[in-house]
Amino acid sequence: MLYENRDHKWVYLFAEGNTRMKALLGGKGANVAEMTNAHLPVPPGFTITTEACNAYYEYDRQFPEGMWSQSQEALGHVEGQTEKGFGNPENPLLVSVRSGAAISMPGMMDTILNLGLNDETVEGLATLTGDRRFALDAYRRFIAMFGHIVMGVSSEKFDRVLSRYKSAGQAQSDVVLEVPQLEKVILGYKRIIFSDRRGEEFPQNVYDQLRMAISAVFESWNSRRAIDYRRIHNIAEGLGTAVNVQAMVFGNRGWDSGTGVAFTRNPATGERDIYGEYLLNAQGEDIVAGIRTPNTIDTLAKELPMVYAQLREITAKLETHYQDMQDIEFTIEQGKLWILQTRTGKRTGAAAIHIAVDMVNEGVIDKETAVLRVDPSLLDQLLHPMIDPAVDVTILAQGLPASPGAATGRVVFDPDEAEELTQNGERVILVRHETSPDDFHGLAAANAVLTARGGMTSHAAVVARGMGKPCVVGAESLDINYEEGIFQVGTHEMRRGDWITLDGSTGRVLLGQVATVQPELGGPFNTFMTWADNMRRLQVRANADNGVDAQVARDFGAEGIGLCRTEHMFMGEERLAIMREMILAEDLAAREFALEKLLPIQRQDFLELFMAMDGLPVTIRLLDPPLHEFLPDYELLQGEIAELKLQLNQAKSFNEIDHLLKQIWSKEQLLRQVERLREANPMLGHRGCRLGLIHPEVTEMQTRAIVEASCEARIAGARVMPEIMIPLVGMAAELVNQRQIVERIADEVLSTYGMRTEIKIGTMIELPRAALTADQIAQHADFFSFGTNDLTQTTMGLSRDDSTRFLPSYIKAGILPHDPFQTLDQDGVGQLVQTGVTKGREAKPNLKIGVCGEHGGDPASVAFFDQVGMEYVSCSPFRVPIARLAAAQASLRARL
Amino acid sequence: MLYENRDHKWVYLFAEGNTRMKALLGGKGANVAEMTNAHLPVPPGFTITTEACNAYYEYDRQFPEGMWSQSQEALGHVEGQTEKGFGNPENPLLVSVRSGAAISMPGMMDTILNLGLNDETVEGLATLTGDRRFALDAYRRFIAMFGHIVMGVSSEKFDRVLSRYKSAGQAQSDVVLEVPQLEKVILGYKRIIFSDRRGEEFPQNVYDQLRMAISAVFESWNSRRAIDYRRIHNIAEGLGTAVNVQAMVFGNRGWDSGTGVAFTRNPATGERDIYGEYLLNAQGEDIVAGIRTPNTIDTLAKELPMVYAQLREITAKLETHYQDMQDIEFTIEQGKLWILQTRTGKRTGAAAIHIAVDMVNEGVIDKETAVLRVDPSLLDQLLHPMIDPAVDVTILAQGLPASPGAATGRVVFDPDEAEELTQNGERVILVRHETSPDDFHGLAAANAVLTARGGMTSHAAVVARGMGKPCVVGAESLDINYEEGIFQVGTHEMRRGDWITLDGSTGRVLLGQVATVQPELGGPFNTFMTWADNMRRLQVRANADNGVDAQVARDFGAEGIGLCRTEHMFMGEERLAIMREMILAEDLAAREFALEKLLPIQRQDFLELFMAMDGLPVTIRLLDPPLHEFLPDYELLQGEIAELKLQLNQAKSFNEIDHLLKQIWSKEQLLRQVERLREANPMLGHRGCRLGLIHPEVTEMQTRAIVEASCEARIAGARVMPEIMIPLVGMAAELVNQRQIVERIADEVLSTYGMRTEIKIGTMIELPRAALTADQIAQHADFFSFGTNDLTQTTMGLSRDDSTRFLPSYIKAGILPHDPFQTLDQDGVGQLVQTGVTKGREAKPNLKIGVCGEHGGDPASVAFFDQVGMEYVSCSPFRVPIARLAAAQASLRARL
Repeated sequence: MLYENRDHKWVYLFAEGNTRMKALLGGKGANVAEMTNAHLPVPPGFTITTEACNAYYEYDRQFPEGMWSQSQEALGHVEGQTEKGFGNPENPLLVSVRSGAAISMPGMMDTILNLGLNDETVEGLATLTGDRRFALDAYRRFIAMFGHIVMGVSSEKFDRVLSRYKSAGQAQSDVVLEVPQLEKVILGYKRIIFSDRRGEEFPQNVYDQLRMAISAVFESWNSRRAIDYRRIHNIAEGLGTAVNVQAMVFGNRGWDSGTGVAFTRNPATGERDIYGEYLLNAQGEDIVAGIRTPNTIDTLAKELPMVYAQLREITAKLETHYQDMQDIEFTIEQGKLWILQTRTGKRTGAAAIHIAVDMVNEGVIDKETAVLRVDPSLLDQLLHPMIDPAVDVTILAQGLPASPGAATGRVVFDPDEAEELTQNGERVILVRHETSPDDFHGLAAANAVLTARGGMTSHAAVVARGMGKPCVVGAESLDINYEEGIFQVGTHEMRRGDWITLDGSTGRVLLGQVATVQPELGGPFNTFMTWADNMRRLQVRANADNGVDAQVARDFGAEGIGLCRTEHMFMGEERLAIMREMILAEDLAAREFALEKLLPIQRQDFLELFMAMDGLPVTIRLLDPPLHEFLPDYELLQGEIAELKLQLNQAKSFNEIDHLLKQIWSKEQLLRQVERLREANPMLGHRGCRLGLIHPEVTEMQTRAIVEASCEARIAGARVMPEIMIPLVGMAAELVNQRQIVERIADEVLSTYGMRTEIKIGTMIELPRAALTADQIAQHADFFSFGTNDLTQTTMGLSRDDSTRFLPSYIKAGILPHDPFQTLDQDGVGQLVQTGVTKGREAKPNLKIGVCGEHGGDPASVAFFDQVGMEYVSCSPFRVPIARLAAAQASLRARL
Repeated sequence: MLYENRDHKWVYLFAEGNTRMKALLGGKGANVAEMTNAHLPVPPGFTITTEACNAYYEYDRQFPEGMWSQSQEALGHVEGQTEKGFGNPENPLLVSVRSGAAISMPGMMDTILNLGLNDETVEGLATLTGDRRFALDAYRRFIAMFGHIVMGVSSEKFDRVLSRYKSAGQAQSDVVLEVPQLEKVILGYKRIIFSDRRGEEFPQNVYDQLRMAISAVFESWNSRRAIDYRRIHNIAEGLGTAVNVQAMVFGNRGWDSGTGVAFTRNPATGERDIYGEYLLNAQGEDIVAGIRTPNTIDTLAKELPMVYAQLREITAKLETHYQDMQDIEFTIEQGKLWILQTRTGKRTGAAAIHIAVDMVNEGVIDKETAVLRVDPSLLDQLLHPMIDPAVDVTILAQGLPASPGAATGRVVFDPDEAEELTQNGERVILVRHETSPDDFHGLAAANAVLTARGGMTSHAAVVARGMGKPCVVGAESLDINYEEGIFQVGTHEMRRGDWITLDGSTGRVLLGQVATVQPELGGPFNTFMTWADNMRRLQVRANADNGVDAQVARDFGAEGIGLCRTEHMFMGEERLAIMREMILAEDLAAREFALEKLLPIQRQDFLELFMAMDGLPVTIRLLDPPLHEFLPDYELLQGEIAELKLQLNQAKSFNEIDHLLKQIWSKEQLLRQVERLREANPMLGHRGCRLGLIHPEVTEMQTRAIVEASCEARIAGARVMPEIMIPLVGMAAELVNQRQIVERIADEVLSTYGMRTEIKIGTMIELPRAALTADQIAQHADFFSFGTNDLTQTTMGLSRDDSTRFLPSYIKAGILPHDPFQTLDQDGVGQLVQTGVTKGREAKPNLKIGVCGEHGGDPASVAFFDQVGMEYVSCSPFRVPIARLAAAQASLRARL
């Protein structure tokens, strides 16, 4: 083991590091080191490496040998630089202890401030600063923070003590406590720790404090919220966190002090101007927790003009240094500006594109870098609906527009409940006073987030932006009561389960379910996407079932339809009735009669599709779901019959009885039909091409509708490229059978119209057997389209519907790295995709191959499909831009 | 193409062929050629090759060039040998035209006799034989046969004409028609053809007759019944049939003539004595169709002693020549014996073993040949139940014991209905006057067959023996009325759907459902199986869930338990109640309380298993099915609640209402629980190790029960070899998780008992993903057991339950060669098995690998498992001997 060398270096002074040492020092540590070496005003300190964290877990939660002594040595350096002494009552050095992993995990890890205070040093600090109130306030904050994070005491217990000493009406702010109250609070805090920890005292020894705090940071790497964050963001478990120990500076030493966050560009819009918030006379935690609503950065120009000018200069320098937008934490201590941290700033999709395009225009980065820099999943935000401007809305409240997009959902106050309801398919909006990292799972689950307090950089805002979901914060008119499950706003009382709508782009909170519309995509977006399009090899198509959706897809840049699900066309009320007539037909003649009625309907749908996609290929899949999906639900029918029988029991007149009996009889007949068609495992049942093999007349009707529509579209002037796709083929013979029918009908129709149209006939590869025998199947296919949804279900033996019950636990426990229905399981399902592509091409080198499962819109999966050499991916219209960008990035990365 | 050579030889005289030319000349042609060259009394003739048949289909149903002229030339040779002329009215040559494929397909192909007769030659035949009645009878038979087979006229139409001229009461026989009636019959037959074929005459040109007959034989290769037969017997489609044209001899030229079938040994028991049947004054078709009940062969010794002696001599010679039991067709024409055909005789399982063992003892064949010669699936018959001798039975009728074994089923008269009811899971017995090849699908479907007419070599008897199902023929006391769906026998009237039982070993027809018992397996069986066991590499285990079944399996030669399904142990009423308590537990404590109650029950079951399998390995699978399988059916509950509500509606007293309300309330609560656990696709749902991951306490309880039972069994003196199997693993991490639990509990229990027992921990490979990632999984497994049932379901996306609706059509249409749940789909599923074995062994060379799906008892699949290098197969106890034999054959064939 590396770690067995006693002289191994576990600790780096800031001056010893640089930005390339992120893996070892964490993002924060590496950046602070870089800033230190760039001679920026950074409080001195040192970093304990991520290796130390891993060694800690490897050695059964003990510090590795040498780490502690090296830390003490580094602390000595800091003492020298600050000319203060750690634990020295005369001139105490206070430090912050922060975590810092290689990949930024905002708000996920614990931070301890003011470490080094005890009953003696607090008095030294009071003397030194001449401000006993300030010193006591710092001390009580430290005890509470240490008690909670390091010693595991519930923070609510400290809050309760605090609120006892606050005057009523002053709950919004906590700067008003005076010395006598503070002394009592400190005493109360110590007692809470003593009783909660059953006799363990709050440690007065400052080295004990430091040792315990370092352990706590290491431990926080494995806290539930950290694990959750890594899971959702696909961050590996074995990276570990570094620990940064840094001399404290104080933003709460009066009204010439303060703390804030500055972005070098606007993280919501991308505008090129310094952007941020600060609070005077406050510590950093006040901003992040959103307890007080901060001021925007430009007001600092009036309040502290010299500091503001210096801040502008430093932020500009930092952006130039890192060649990307920076998110900078700063503190002002009695008029002196300190930079605590800088990192690449999180941004919305719109901002990401805006900044990338601007930076290319500014000559800072090249187009390839610009394209690689935008996370494709962020584009989702740009494409999501916004509130329909034509609709009258009732505004309940106005908050800050923390994350753009509009969303509708039911009010939920509890994060657990949000998670639960979402798993049941509900749309919910999480409503909180403010959020904390403990609420992360609720934020991840909810459709949108609304908080009554906090600013644009509060926890809720940062997390929501990162996940691209609408968020409104600081809607202060909301009066929330968790216990009763209501919030009051003006004259409205909204209860748990009521509908509201959030407009994250304007900060409005709206009553009820409000209609939304699609946004227009502006200039930078088009510029950016054109760059991306020029860099990609994969084509991008869309899944769409009608002319309207097809047009949307085309507007989003789709280069064809990769999947039209014909069964969706049967779902209208009138159509469903005919479909049922077809299914319940007693004989072939009756079935053909019903199919005759469906033919013109399908033809019209296809015609619209072909017209919308003039000049582009359109892949139409023949009927796929089992027929019972079109019939009434068995249990619903059973219930209706039981109800009718109850009525029959109470019926009085013969007329009534006769009427009820007829109804019961007819429903019972239907029930028998439904019963006959039901399946134990419909996923593995009589569906896909298995329908067409038993009922060739269905294949015939659908083919006729497709080919007739293609002829009509040509007559109407469109260039058509129809592709007919046979679903659920497992055996080459199935495809042969269906292909013969399709070819026969197509020839018939084309000769009636006197036209020649090339019609491609291909198949879905969505069963393991199809992938395994792709060489046999390819001989009869013009194209393959991988149906990775079903392929995932069969390969993993995992029902998408049923697995929601245990899949979340699987992901939490690390059995699966991510949801295999969102991101392709490359280890397993990917092998079959690779096999299918290889064998298919072996048998037919010019075989066209694509994918039409939902993975076609997932960036990681798109990269895989590019790598195995597919021609195209197809995804939902709204994900087309994401796929285009992901494809470009895949091409660029392949070249690296 | 081979066939484009004009000089290609399409036709072989019998003298030009031999037995090794089966592929080209078909079985019949090759054997007749061999007999001809062995100087046996074979009527002269020639064979048109199977190549000609294939060329016929390739050339759009035209004879290939040269075939017809070669046929005419060969016919000239036959004219020379017989000194007769084809179409010569003075001395006409008549021929039979028969099909003959490379693999014997008895009764499946059409045969035409007496070809060469027309209005002129029939008079020549009359003059020549001095028997005008005989000549006219031959002519009317020929017209009917030709009209039906070649010209496609329904044979019923001819029958109707015939019956018009038969005197009442003479229906049993048709030898009684005299010349005037025969002349009218012939005229009537011609008219039927003329009207049915809309003006086409019965051909008077004998060469037209021959050409049309040859085409008809070629066509019969693709008749439904031929395709059915090939499907059921796994015979390839592309082999084609040969056509044999042979000079006619007549068994119906008086009472010194006759026709018969002789086996060189008893095909039912294997006894070493000539066995067979004949009819005097009859043609071959009379025997096969079973219209007259024939005499046993030994009576021929009295009736025609010279012929009998010659027959014995020739049959002995043939058996020696072919070194196997022969099935010989012969005809006696006015005292002269002719051998028409010989082939390897079909036989029962008991006969197959008896003959094989005898022939080894006689020094005719070696042990390897003996082992290879017995079709493993025939052993099934030996192991099937027989009528319990202790039970009183009501004998309805006595017939001939045509195929051994006992079976119970509902009476069915129509083959289509038999097929339909069987598909619905009914057990049926097909009852017919006699059967014909058109009834094949009904015979294949039924559990047993009963006919009122026909002998031991009738169609029904031959087919039933071939398929190993019980059959009683010639139960002449049965009076069957198809129209009314009844048969009368004595005072009993049995209706369609009534239960009867057949004893195919004694020929008894019994009233109702009669209890059956297992047969004792005799000496030759044990001798034979010992030979087989010494030749095989694969071990054979059994699937058994309790001590009793395990003992049966051990008696059948099982070398361990390959699969104990623990869920079967929860199915008793009392156990089920505890299981439900466990499932419906509100919290962990309640669940653990219920599990505590299940523990001693499981432990006792396992103890019995270990005791029964003393010294042999026992693989126990942890709980596999989804939990809702243990709960009441959702719809049943719904129905009960609806019923209670109806009662509530009519309830009078408060007491009654109160009682009903409580019942409803409790059932509704249960309904909600069931609802919560229901799944859309339980096959792909929360089952297998996914249960143990979410509820580790279940894994803990089961492990405890297994390990405690193994300790108790050791205390009781048994040597135990427990193997714990984790089901439905798809990801290595699942196995890691469950393995940890099993190891922890096992260590706990073993240390409590102070024992050391090697406990193997392995997994089922039953998901495609498991096979694909077998290298990862193998690192944590001591063994793999392929669950090929589920692997087939997921790989093919085919629910075993639901696919019964379309799978039969698939097999009929040739989309699938056979039921993939019976015989492993080597092309698809087999690839994954091969991958799983290869990757598993790569990661862990000493990994033990077996299979526990039902394919473990299927001979073709066993050969595959041997070939991929598995260590063992496991199957149901009754299939253990089949697997042992199949394994031996696989080993022997691998050495070839």
